[in-house]
Amino acid sequence: MTATTGGPPGGVYAAALMPLAGDLSPDPKALIRHYRWLLANGCDGLAVLGTTGEANSFSVEERLGVIDAVAAAGLPMDRMIIGTGCCAIPDSVRLSRRALESGAGGVLVLPPFYYKKVSADGLFAAYRAIIEGVASPKLRLYIYHFPLMTGLDISLDLIERLIRAFPSTVVGIKDSSGNWPNMEAMCRRFPGFQVFAGTERYLLAALRAGGVGCISATTNVTAPLAAQVYANWHRAQADSIQERLSAVRAIFEGYPAIAALKRVLARHSGDSGWLNIRPPLSALGEEEARELYAKLDAAAFTLAKAA
Amino acid sequence: MTATTGGPPGGVYAAALMPLAGDLSPDPKALIRHYRWLLANGCDGLAVLGTTGEANSFSVEERLGVIDAVAAAGLPMDRMIIGTGCCAIPDSVRLSRRALESGAGGVLVLPPFYYKKVSADGLFAAYRAIIEGVASPKLRLYIYHFPLMTGLDISLDLIERLIRAFPSTVVGIKDSSGNWPNMEAMCRRFPGFQVFAGTERYLLAALRAGGVGCISATTNVTAPLAAQVYANWHRAQADSIQERLSAVRAIFEGYPAIAALKRVLARHSGDSGWLNIRPPLSALGEEEARELYAKLDAAAFTLAKAA
Repeated sequence: MTATTGGPPGGVYAAALMPLAGDLSPDPKALIRHYRWLLANGCDGLAVLGTTGEANSFSVEERLGVIDAVAAAGLPMDRMIIGTGCCAIPDSVRLSRRALESGAGGVLVLPPFYYKKVSADGLFAAYRAIIEGVASPKLRLYIYHFPLMTGLDISLDLIERLIRAFPSTVVGIKDSSGNWPNMEAMCRRFPGFQVFAGTERYLLAALRAGGVGCISATTNVTAPLAAQVYANWHRAQADSIQERLSAVRAIFEGYPAIAALKRVLARHSGDSGWLNIRPPLSALGEEEARELYAKLDAAAFTLAKAA
Repeated sequence: MTATTGGPPGGVYAAALMPLAGDLSPDPKALIRHYRWLLANGCDGLAVLGTTGEANSFSVEERLGVIDAVAAAGLPMDRMIIGTGCCAIPDSVRLSRRALESGAGGVLVLPPFYYKKVSADGLFAAYRAIIEGVASPKLRLYIYHFPLMTGLDISLDLIERLIRAFPSTVVGIKDSSGNWPNMEAMCRRFPGFQVFAGTERYLLAALRAGGVGCISATTNVTAPLAAQVYANWHRAQADSIQERLSAVRAIFEGYPAIAALKRVLARHSGDSGWLNIRPPLSALGEEEARELYAKLDAAAFTLAKAA
């Protein structure tokens, strides 16, 4: 089946990290600086308030404040996809409405994720309640499929049911399952539906299968390389760039991703504020950090200059 | 090590179901009626806004409203333990403060549960942030251990660390792991620490090992039987009552617990409002309901009269 699109453009998206102040509240100034740096260095767009942005560690009010700060900064909102999926449907509705008002290109919506062994009917009803709660023809909703965090599987049949019921609203997915055959099946089965790989490891494969890009944690640092893959995906040379990209990404696999990425940005920027992280997450230890730096240095990996 | 107690008394607690209005918002009138019925029929106390109460499907504002409604109804607040654990620490703090103000005997606190593979240090930091955020010597906190829902394990060592750091605050646990050896180890290792079995299946065993009672979903209907176990636990006849209790409870194991319990209460009360359930949960289907009723009838199980 063919889905109707109309959300933000495809490409390389970072699931943007969230810089925190000393009291572990979001630091809007540092956040805007980071967003601009990402957009100037390989990112076509940003996933705001996603898993990597520690979104679920913040109250709805804190998240509304972040959306407002991003909108007020004059960033290209049409290339922002804002995470709005909470355990409680009224919270998802409230955040999605604010995202729409901010001019965001789309919203990235986790299913309510506290309960497990939930039926496909229950998940469908949850998404329907969110969509009907927002009640706007302008809503562009991206399903956020992240079974490792949610414990919930969003099947191809459920995706099809959602696209059929809300063809102009349910326009895409971020598939963070890490399951390539499933991602490929989505690309093939739903032409026009915007499939973003949840990792840049599958960026080239997804583009070749009909996907539109990637939204990934590690593109907070690998975006310039990922952008080269994106620009060249229909050319033979893309394979070697993807290989290099995957090798850098793999270095992070041995570490808790958010803590490791924040540590690398702290080193890069000299701003120790990047070490702030809200519990239950913890900062990377000194020894792990040194080991990670050594691996990145050995791979001759460097970050783009700060803006 | 010995913990300092001072929370609500032990005994049989229901993780009370949440009756909903037609628009799927909490129905305070029906809720108070259900709470009174439970307290009149075997419950020593209630867990308000726990997993069975669909708490995480409600916004913080909706939950604050429920706490206020319970407090305003003149129920014995010292025998109420209120669920306040959210993904975001500020939300857990806000709800815990309101619970304290309401006079609740204690709060039942899930760790922030979105992120997985979180370190024990991270979980400790999260509980510390909640306790320091509430900042009241009156706080009595029960750890809510439910790895099937949270994907997080709270180890005995972490419990010991929390008791040592906050001996007059961290006074007990609801262990919904279903792992009896772990529950028994808690009872033995932390004398004075109030261990509530998360299922009445282990009520007698927990009491004999030094636990203080149970907080369970199915005690919404089995409380009178559970109360007989509690009253007789030091007598030989307790074993046969526990056997009967476990047999009734086992009937529910083949069904989604919350939907099945709501269905049984709808049948019992004649109030179809009990069928309302908020997505992602779904009501029990007709066929499953008939099968469940038949099993309960075959076991000659009946509920106490409505108040």
